[in-house]
Amino acid sequence: MKHNFGAGPCILPKEVFQEASEAVIDFNNTGLSILEISHRSKEFEQVVVEAEALVRELLEVPEGYSVLFLQGGASQQFAMIPMNILPEGGKAAYLDTGVWATKAAKEASKLGNVEIVASSSDKNYTYIPKDFVVPADATYFHYTSNNTIYGTEIFEKPKVSIPTAVDMSSDILSRVINVADFDLIYAGAQKNMGPAGVTLVIVKDDLLGKSGRVIPSIFDYQQHAKAGSMYNTPPVYSIYVSLLNLRWLKEKGGVSVIEQENIIKARTLYDEIERNPYFKGTANQEDRSRMNVTFVMDTAEQEAAFLELAKERGLIGLKGHRSVGGFRASIYNALTISSVNALVDAMKEFEEKQGA
Amino acid sequence: MKHNFGAGPCILPKEVFQEASEAVIDFNNTGLSILEISHRSKEFEQVVVEAEALVRELLEVPEGYSVLFLQGGASQQFAMIPMNILPEGGKAAYLDTGVWATKAAKEASKLGNVEIVASSSDKNYTYIPKDFVVPADATYFHYTSNNTIYGTEIFEKPKVSIPTAVDMSSDILSRVINVADFDLIYAGAQKNMGPAGVTLVIVKDDLLGKSGRVIPSIFDYQQHAKAGSMYNTPPVYSIYVSLLNLRWLKEKGGVSVIEQENIIKARTLYDEIERNPYFKGTANQEDRSRMNVTFVMDTAEQEAAFLELAKERGLIGLKGHRSVGGFRASIYNALTISSVNALVDAMKEFEEKQGA
Repeated sequence: MKHNFGAGPCILPKEVFQEASEAVIDFNNTGLSILEISHRSKEFEQVVVEAEALVRELLEVPEGYSVLFLQGGASQQFAMIPMNILPEGGKAAYLDTGVWATKAAKEASKLGNVEIVASSSDKNYTYIPKDFVVPADATYFHYTSNNTIYGTEIFEKPKVSIPTAVDMSSDILSRVINVADFDLIYAGAQKNMGPAGVTLVIVKDDLLGKSGRVIPSIFDYQQHAKAGSMYNTPPVYSIYVSLLNLRWLKEKGGVSVIEQENIIKARTLYDEIERNPYFKGTANQEDRSRMNVTFVMDTAEQEAAFLELAKERGLIGLKGHRSVGGFRASIYNALTISSVNALVDAMKEFEEKQGA
Repeated sequence: MKHNFGAGPCILPKEVFQEASEAVIDFNNTGLSILEISHRSKEFEQVVVEAEALVRELLEVPEGYSVLFLQGGASQQFAMIPMNILPEGGKAAYLDTGVWATKAAKEASKLGNVEIVASSSDKNYTYIPKDFVVPADATYFHYTSNNTIYGTEIFEKPKVSIPTAVDMSSDILSRVINVADFDLIYAGAQKNMGPAGVTLVIVKDDLLGKSGRVIPSIFDYQQHAKAGSMYNTPPVYSIYVSLLNLRWLKEKGGVSVIEQENIIKARTLYDEIERNPYFKGTANQEDRSRMNVTFVMDTAEQEAAFLELAKERGLIGLKGHRSVGGFRASIYNALTISSVNALVDAMKEFEEKQGA
């Protein structure tokens, strides 16, 4: 048995893999593979309709928002957001909480003026900047809610008076959010929503059509909204597997139920990091992520030894990002509490062996 | 048994579906699903490397070309091509052979000046314009080699003295081409290369970096080339299934072998259309596509009756595009000659029943 703590693309529920595998041979008793059906077939149109409806239901998306399944990853959104909502010569405000936030700002700066309202780069992004002013004359404010690499997360939307776009790639569907607080939410699927190859965008319709730019159709949210995410051939399988995963989440009881599980999983692991003298968390306590738990040990030898022990116990994907080092345990929705317990057991085992 | 004549996403070989299904449960004996492995894992990096190598081998791609696996479909290339190679205020020449060619030109016109060098819209795109002049001062010439909807195909590259970009979405890997004749080739995977969700781009390196435009990184071919198609999280599964399909093609003997099969398949079907008094081809004979065979009958009643008979015989995906009507038999690489024979048998059966 393997416990997959990888940061993404990452673990999905076993049931989802099973059904996803079967559909490659025979989708919904059509006698056809999900990979060979037309995206214009009734069967697949139903997949997209249900996936969109489930996102709306699970996140309680209010009226006036479009829910889109696009390609290109969050990185494509870094460009599409300013293309769609930032007028030529306009200004956007970005909060810099790590590599991905920096990239988002850099791409926007190719299309307009970007003001970095605050950055935690001074301490390798181990904390979330708190006191900053967002200029009222900016068109929108952008931030990254969960910083996968550093293990920090922003649970409360910063108080701003302008439209807000948020990259929720690594915490979407892991906790209850109030969609109405945001004007644009986007997320690469490959953490909590599905496999790689599809990106969720939830955008307030009022925000669109005002940038005055000529936008190629494929990058125009309004085109995708009008076409119900079928402007061109969509990433059929990635959407289908996302649907299976959304169904799984609904059956579990929805976002509020998984949030409670995620709180327990994170607490279990952080408690052990606090208790065990061999491990040390890297993120500022109050900014700790519930999705990616980053920690280090005192020496490179200890880290190598623990990684080896973890591997023997089937605990994989734990190596930290090179810019932080040590370990990163990604504990997304589909990772069970028993996998977290297996990691905690290995940490205790390491401690005992050292004490012996 | 179903014979899938759908236009795309479409049939792939049974062996590919089988292996693609197994990998969703256990990829390469890793004990992990292909959907949950990191795109930065050695195992997946090897998938991308091998897929690229197979494209280079099967199409005999010469030195000096990058081979990229991107997202967004051919429609995204409609915008990315001018973004990357057309200077601000520059001119591009487009050949109009159908809806997709028109769309490509329309998107390019958002980024520069477009001259339509010829169009067959006067006869609903049933033929390929032959005598046209491509302006020598245009930056590039663009055409669509196979017109899925109308069943026409351009086998010989038009004689032009400027760089040429070609949309080969529906005939890539179906016939031998000389890549050196082109400066940019692109193809949505979902006909002969793999499932939906990935797009192949083969681009001459010399062509790039000269447009003078500020290009968002995600739309910049040079960024993708530098990163070996891993600029950001790639569409893992779509690339993996494409790899399986490329392996299958290589094992069959490669493109020249499949081309001979495709010639026989197309001839078999066109011969029956010629012979059988109840059916009539819609495309100009000399421009007939080897990939999409379009034909009609005299009356709507006959067409409804034949579609019903076809369905009974397990022949599916035959309904023609609404702009042409009648039937479209897509006979891509993975569709076997026995499926073509089954269609021909049904056509003969229809004729006999009418004669009775």
